[in-house]
Amino acid sequence: MGLDEAAQKPHDRLAAWLADDMAAVNALIRTRMASEHAPRIPEVTAHLVEAGGKRLRPMLTLAAARMCGYQGENHVKLAATVEFIHTATLLHDDVVDESERRRGRPTANLLWDNKSSVLVGDYLFARSFQLMVETQSLRVMDILANASAVIAEGEVLQLTAAQDLGTTEGIYLQVIRGKTAALFAAAMEVGGVIATVPEAQVQALRAYGDALGIAFQIVDDLLDYGGTDAAIGKNTGDDFRERKLTLPVIKAVARADAEERAFWQRTIEKGDQRDGDLAQAMAIMARHGAMAAARDEALHWAETARRSLDILPAHELRDMLSDLADYVVARIN
Amino acid sequence: MGLDEAAQKPHDRLAAWLADDMAAVNALIRTRMASEHAPRIPEVTAHLVEAGGKRLRPMLTLAAARMCGYQGENHVKLAATVEFIHTATLLHDDVVDESERRRGRPTANLLWDNKSSVLVGDYLFARSFQLMVETQSLRVMDILANASAVIAEGEVLQLTAAQDLGTTEGIYLQVIRGKTAALFAAAMEVGGVIATVPEAQVQALRAYGDALGIAFQIVDDLLDYGGTDAAIGKNTGDDFRERKLTLPVIKAVARADAEERAFWQRTIEKGDQRDGDLAQAMAIMARHGAMAAARDEALHWAETARRSLDILPAHELRDMLSDLADYVVARIN
Repeated sequence: MGLDEAAQKPHDRLAAWLADDMAAVNALIRTRMASEHAPRIPEVTAHLVEAGGKRLRPMLTLAAARMCGYQGENHVKLAATVEFIHTATLLHDDVVDESERRRGRPTANLLWDNKSSVLVGDYLFARSFQLMVETQSLRVMDILANASAVIAEGEVLQLTAAQDLGTTEGIYLQVIRGKTAALFAAAMEVGGVIATVPEAQVQALRAYGDALGIAFQIVDDLLDYGGTDAAIGKNTGDDFRERKLTLPVIKAVARADAEERAFWQRTIEKGDQRDGDLAQAMAIMARHGAMAAARDEALHWAETARRSLDILPAHELRDMLSDLADYVVARIN
Repeated sequence: MGLDEAAQKPHDRLAAWLADDMAAVNALIRTRMASEHAPRIPEVTAHLVEAGGKRLRPMLTLAAARMCGYQGENHVKLAATVEFIHTATLLHDDVVDESERRRGRPTANLLWDNKSSVLVGDYLFARSFQLMVETQSLRVMDILANASAVIAEGEVLQLTAAQDLGTTEGIYLQVIRGKTAALFAAAMEVGGVIATVPEAQVQALRAYGDALGIAFQIVDDLLDYGGTDAAIGKNTGDDFRERKLTLPVIKAVARADAEERAFWQRTIEKGDQRDGDLAQAMAIMARHGAMAAARDEALHWAETARRSLDILPAHELRDMLSDLADYVVARIN
């Protein structure tokens, strides 16, 4: 590897290493999202699947499988499965959040309607199950069916925790483990399972995915308050407007004086938000070092992710995954 | 069987014959719809699952398996799987249709919100896949994953066909095969598969479910124009207000003169509906014998369902299923 390559983002290096596999995944996704009978389905999915997403989750499955020496073809099916599950949850999330933009483009629920987003999401879930059944691996199906249940559970938990100032960091961790880390963990785990590596290595892959997913989501939640619209494709302050209790807010609420507490009660609990409230929220969080503390936690989880890889044999892909864990948090800077 | 029993509705006779199995299914449903972390989930599902639904689909799986001499325990898991898939689609349907009542009670989207209905539906889908994976039968998983995809496809097709006066009877058949018959067919088929009966019998069970589902949905669509609120738990004319092209309307549109065509264009295509339009629609349909013609088709499918059972060995449950096909259509009278 030359200096130029080393300087590339780890995500791009993974994409380069796995280019042939990713091409096969993309071809499979295009084939399987088609519907003979309902042309609305490929319209909606193409809008989302072709929207330039990073394909991070399917890449994790491919990397895990290849790093473990897998030589079959099920890694492509499983990578597509993982992307279908992810895309289905995005469609449903946008309905739930009443989002209007994702990855810098109008959301499907805005371009078509909520109905299409709900039903096309269901179609993609069903398609993902068809794909995983084709691998004929009961363990793989078990892992991915469980991940799907944990994802839905995390989303419901997030819904009921929203607007509730009593939300603890423990509940927040449970929410993001469900809505984000469960699929990262499953994506890594199935790669190791189909490569039939020893159980300790399968668990290490899973632990990497879990920690990476947690770091990733904490950073995403931080960027919602500090990132630029161009960088994340959604508007700063969305979570505040949706009254979601994310880590920096939870930390700020825990350290609030009486006046600040009244501010959080009005804006988050009662949803009475006025001009300047977002700036005020960010000022309060900065005053208590809530953003920096949340960033430290993301760094801790990135470290956990990297360490999980230690027991795996040396491999170029292992190094890239290790760098990816750092890079995920470096997005904040 | 005494005269009293023979006079009972076939659905009640099935329920009596399968009482122990159904009790096991209900217990499993209650266990699996629980969520340790998100109490909103059992709240929503209990509202729907305990609402006194007829449990027709799980009963089909139990009847098919028992009629084929099955002695294991997977029929209970599969019956619960089928009910979870059905319940998930109900939750999402009510969001899509913006329904306010189901089975005579307020819908979950009205009692909680659309968000809860979408996410709890996803949770039930995931739970259904977990349950089917537990049977360890790849063929069963294949059948049910395919059914889930066909259901979602049928729902999307219905969405795009709504408001379109060009919807043919062929498209209608495809829609109801997806949204209703696919799960009936799969529910019957998996019962035969786990009992490992010869392939011709498995296909006969599937054909029965398909035809029964089609008859059932045609009747449901007829009742939407003619049934009483108490009988079907939803308000007469819902489909008209939602501008859905169901069989009696499609038949009436095909036979419309210029004035009637203008009426359908205004009310269904443009959605400009006024007081008295529903009565007018029903009068036009009656004038062309559209209701009677639709009923004849339901009778034809009921007959197809009954005949499908012919190649199966004699069994009390076979007779009840045969009677059930007639009864489904008799609901119209």
